[in-house]
Amino acid sequence: MTDLNRIAPDVVLGDNVSVVAFVNLYGCTVGDDTRIGPFVEIQSGVTVGARCKISSHTFICEGVTIEDEVFVGHHVCFTNDRDPRSTNPDGSLQTADDWELLTTVVRRGASIGSGAVILPGVEIGEGALVGAGAVVTRDVPAGTVVAGVPGRPLRPRA
Amino acid sequence: MTDLNRIAPDVVLGDNVSVVAFVNLYGCTVGDDTRIGPFVEIQSGVTVGARCKISSHTFICEGVTIEDEVFVGHHVCFTNDRDPRSTNPDGSLQTADDWELLTTVVRRGASIGSGAVILPGVEIGEGALVGAGAVVTRDVPAGTVVAGVPGRPLRPRA
Amino acid sequence: MTDLNRIAPDVVLGDNVSVVAFVNLYGCTVGDDTRIGPFVEIQSGVTVGARCKISSHTFICEGVTIEDEVFVGHHVCFTNDRDPRSTNPDGSLQTADDWELLTTVVRRGASIGSGAVILPGVEIGEGALVGAGAVVTRDVPAGTVVAGVPGRPLRPRA
Repeated sequence: MTDLNRIAPDVVLGDNVSVVAFVNLYGCTVGDDTRIGPFVEIQSGVTVGARCKISSHTFICEGVTIEDEVFVGHHVCFTNDRDPRSTNPDGSLQTADDWELLTTVVRRGASIGSGAVILPGVEIGEGALVGAGAVVTRDVPAGTVVAGVPGRPLRPRA
Repeated sequence: MTDLNRIAPDVVLGDNVSVVAFVNLYGCTVGDDTRIGPFVEIQSGVTVGARCKISSHTFICEGVTIEDEVFVGHHVCFTNDRDPRSTNPDGSLQTADDWELLTTVVRRGASIGSGAVILPGVEIGEGALVGAGAVVTRDVPAGTVVAGVPGRPLRPRA
Repeated sequence: MTDLNRIAPDVVLGDNVSVVAFVNLYGCTVGDDTRIGPFVEIQSGVTVGARCKISSHTFICEGVTIEDEVFVGHHVCFTNDRDPRSTNPDGSLQTADDWELLTTVVRRGASIGSGAVILPGVEIGEGALVGAGAVVTRDVPAGTVVAGVPGRPLRPRA
């Protein structure tokens, strides 16, 4: 059967990483026992920890660090630029030198619900839960459930 | 040309089901004349009825039942777990025994707008319309239009 | 290596258009120097201008026109039908004759943040910025930042 994955030679996969099909991975590092669903893209410079689950249709951009034992739902979208543009004022295509990369960290044991959008430059605390469909615009305290648009703290996670 | 679909041998497709490309289907049943767009995943145990349209980039998880003549837009995301986690407290990877699967039903003739996120355990009533981008957190009455985050009833569907 | 793109013979690509993998393009026109990410679908009749960036997982439907130098983020979803249905009242499958196609225009130099959903029939003005995760339900004035669900004007774009 045709290999329907696209994993660049510079990707570093730990032991027992599982990948199904239709992934586009390049320049990233993925820890042991992590499972990656279909239609996932992980960009250069991303580190995903061990024993994570990265579900289908999720996009993890440059600048994101995901610690161990994190659950990332389906259709989750990270970002890294507050004011993205295709071109510079002179009409030339933007390159990596033309904008500021903001970084995002997802701490150990956190879970991000499906369909969540994570604005750039936030930290999602250890063991936190981001509700499905939330738009996270600021840091999420450890052990807290946030939901809504913009994401607001609801309660401690049990 | 290379076959760019991934349809497991256990998938049951009715007559005249159309599939374009880049789908990941396994353990599901799809009724007659249903059309499935690209970048769609349908998981085990899902039943999709006849004469449905399942649009591109949509994810239908285990636990979901879709009756006949349902429209599911693009980028729609179903869910089945209220508190998803990658690992158990002892650090072992979660398996199907470690969490409670909640079920969702979409009744005949309902339409789900693009980009909607459906929280687990809801019923979307016959002929209802979920607006694009809505996050559905509770049951949707038959024949009703709901929209927003969280989804709220707006009016009867014409 | 297998070609993991699906680009129909009727697609018109300008000079130096870059396409990575896992795209489904048909009947569309794409201008010079535009970059298209993976897991993107662009439907028939769409025109994308020159020097645009169309990021991964984005869906651009029939009826959408994107002018030059536009940034479209990841997981952006356009729409073109206010009341989508799979079937007609007699149970027959809907065809193009059975519903009204609404058109959407994204003016030059606008940026659409990741995860945004664009309701049908709107105009996104020149140089505007749609925030990540916004649901755009009405026209966006030129040079304005909108965000939220539904999208509301926040401030002029710097």
